[in-house]
Amino acid sequence: MEEQQISEPEPLINLIKALKRLPGIGIRSARRIAYHLMQYDLQGANSLSIALSEATGSLQHCISCNSFSETDLCVTCSSSFRDKSLLCIVETPSDLINLEASHGYKGLYYVLMGRISPLDGIGPKELNFHKISERINKGGIEEVIIATGFTAEGETTAQFLIDMLVPFGIKTSRLARGVPAGSELEYIDAGTIAWALMDRKSNL
Amino acid sequence: MEEQQISEPEPLINLIKALKRLPGIGIRSARRIAYHLMQYDLQGANSLSIALSEATGSLQHCISCNSFSETDLCVTCSSSFRDKSLLCIVETPSDLINLEASHGYKGLYYVLMGRISPLDGIGPKELNFHKISERINKGGIEEVIIATGFTAEGETTAQFLIDMLVPFGIKTSRLARGVPAGSELEYIDAGTIAWALMDRKSNL
Ligand SMILES: [Zn+2]
Ligand SMILES: [Zn+2]
Repeated sequence: MEEQQISEPEPLINLIKALKRLPGIGIRSARRIAYHLMQYDLQGANSLSIALSEATGSLQHCISCNSFSETDLCVTCSSSFRDKSLLCIVETPSDLINLEASHGYKGLYYVLMGRISPLDGIGPKELNFHKISERINKGGIEEVIIATGFTAEGETTAQFLIDMLVPFGIKTSRLARGVPAGSELEYIDAGTIAWALMDRKSNL
Repeated sequence: MEEQQISEPEPLINLIKALKRLPGIGIRSARRIAYHLMQYDLQGANSLSIALSEATGSLQHCISCNSFSETDLCVTCSSSFRDKSLLCIVETPSDLINLEASHGYKGLYYVLMGRISPLDGIGPKELNFHKISERINKGGIEEVIIATGFTAEGETTAQFLIDMLVPFGIKTSRLARGVPAGSELEYIDAGTIAWALMDRKSNL
């Protein structure tokens, strides 16, 4: 190990360490990325350095939906075109983007920034569930659509949310489960088919 | 797409773009990394920003071995403990580190920073082969150990180097091919076993 440290300059070691800290990046990828940047893409390295410092300096959480925003209230929450009687709860900002891309939803959002995961010590407290009840207490919301993932953790999170919302006497719903659009049944897993059968819609 | 841009703040979009530019990082990973940094690891984002700007600002190529260095001549090349009659040619700084970690080599290095890859338009010119001949012309080198990879491209690179070095009348060698230390033959691929048979060492 000592020899290794002698043969690599310190700024390179520091860069590899900082890259390795990113989720999903191991030591090999970190090294490959560092070499690539230093050898072929100094401009990319500079862009990333600036983007990181600008993002850490300017991003905050929207006080209403908890998603990332440059302002106290994000663009979606400040829009006058949104239906303020609907609140959709999602796990991450990516989920919000996907829902927006569907053009099927015009209500407001709440982004949990995670999901309940007892093994990782993430419960309702860590996800600031109280912010959701505070928001409902303010009034005006008629339905909460729980759009957490259809994974074990997503389902657990949904159940916690439903339990928390019961005392409010507010209508809650969950996205429909079923066969994805454009899919051949042949390639759909059995669990999804079982769901689609249970939740089948009558044509009458 | 327009809707997607409205719902994400610009500094976040820029960060995702800059991350996506890294080799091996797709749009999904870029987004996941950006969210992770902004949500859980602002310090990691800052460390990476600083490491990038320090590395781009301070790293150069060693004038002798071509590896990354903070100084004109790197630590290895300036060491008085190295055998200056041996020159080992490797593809990347990682290969150099691995050779150093073996403690089996005390000579000098030349790092190609790549390998010959006609499909990618990388030939002897792009890899600055002339720097190797210039270095040999300076005298003192008695043997060139070609330690490029045992891949198709690594072998092609080795052959180009051997051809280039013939006129110098200098001894060239290649790392031994064979079964890795600690391996059970059962798990070794047939190509490696064929090599190990061809290159077998007599015990006489
Ligand atoms: Zn918002
Ligand atoms: Zn050097």
